[in-house]
Amino acid sequence: MTTDTRTSYAEAAIEADPTVPAIHIHRDFAATPEQLFRAHTDPDLVRRWMGPADREVEIQEWDARDGGSWRFTDGSDGDVQAFRGCFHTVRPDRIVQTFTWEGMPDGVALETLTFEDLGDGRTRLHAQSLCDSFEDRDAWLRSGMEVGVNDGYAAIDRLLADGSL
Amino acid sequence: MTTDTRTSYAEAAIEADPTVPAIHIHRDFAATPEQLFRAHTDPDLVRRWMGPADREVEIQEWDARDGGSWRFTDGSDGDVQAFRGCFHTVRPDRIVQTFTWEGMPDGVALETLTFEDLGDGRTRLHAQSLCDSFEDRDAWLRSGMEVGVNDGYAAIDRLLADGSL
Repeated sequence: MTTDTRTSYAEAAIEADPTVPAIHIHRDFAATPEQLFRAHTDPDLVRRWMGPADREVEIQEWDARDGGSWRFTDGSDGDVQAFRGCFHTVRPDRIVQTFTWEGMPDGVALETLTFEDLGDGRTRLHAQSLCDSFEDRDAWLRSGMEVGVNDGYAAIDRLLADGSL
Repeated sequence: MTTDTRTSYAEAAIEADPTVPAIHIHRDFAATPEQLFRAHTDPDLVRRWMGPADREVEIQEWDARDGGSWRFTDGSDGDVQAFRGCFHTVRPDRIVQTFTWEGMPDGVALETLTFEDLGDGRTRLHAQSLCDSFEDRDAWLRSGMEVGVNDGYAAIDRLLADGSL
């Protein structure tokens, strides 16, 4: 991974890869890598930031270890959506997991998260979501996913600011 | 998935996808979809066919269910290789799992297996392995992986012929 040190990602950058059917997200946090790792592995914390701000998250399973699995729902009466996957790798510097929205059970993305220490009390989160076709990748980009991404990362900022994380 | 009914895959066809960093394998078996599903989910059977014929397989874990995980080693004294992953989806018609050779722990492929009933007592196995770069995909194609594929599928043919499967 190459880092353009001239760039700052106060807001999440969401980019379509030009050569493979992947989405790349970059976002800076006033956090250590350890704090971002905990935000992604502790189910009590995940529940408090994941997804769009107007949707209630309920964690059914969040077994963040190599070979563990996860599932959560969001929304409320009449509009509950479910997501699930397994954790392939859970290391302090790297999480690899699968991701499916249960409304489209055959669609599976492979997600890779890395936590890059910027050396000044900030950490850059890099998230890659790999799909098996450009059609699926582009449909996901058009789905409004940036709302969940931006709301979720803003909620992590608040957890950091109020000392919860 | 489109099927070219003029084609028969008595030998495995191993193909590089032209547009995404995936490998596609197609292979016909004198088997039902249920038999091929069992060959991939029952660890006692997996042990008897997986990989190159001259390497002994030992299964450490084969928990073939949504969210389960797997690990096996092959080889013998001084040359033991380990492989591991998690099962994202395990259905009679479809298995989705992650795959890592532990010698390169950050390399993760997403594998999708489907069992296509050809309607004449034969079933076509379709296996897709998705990598996150063309470099990794092409290195894998050059690794000699066809030996394990062809030996393994010939071993499934024998398990079918001798009634083990």
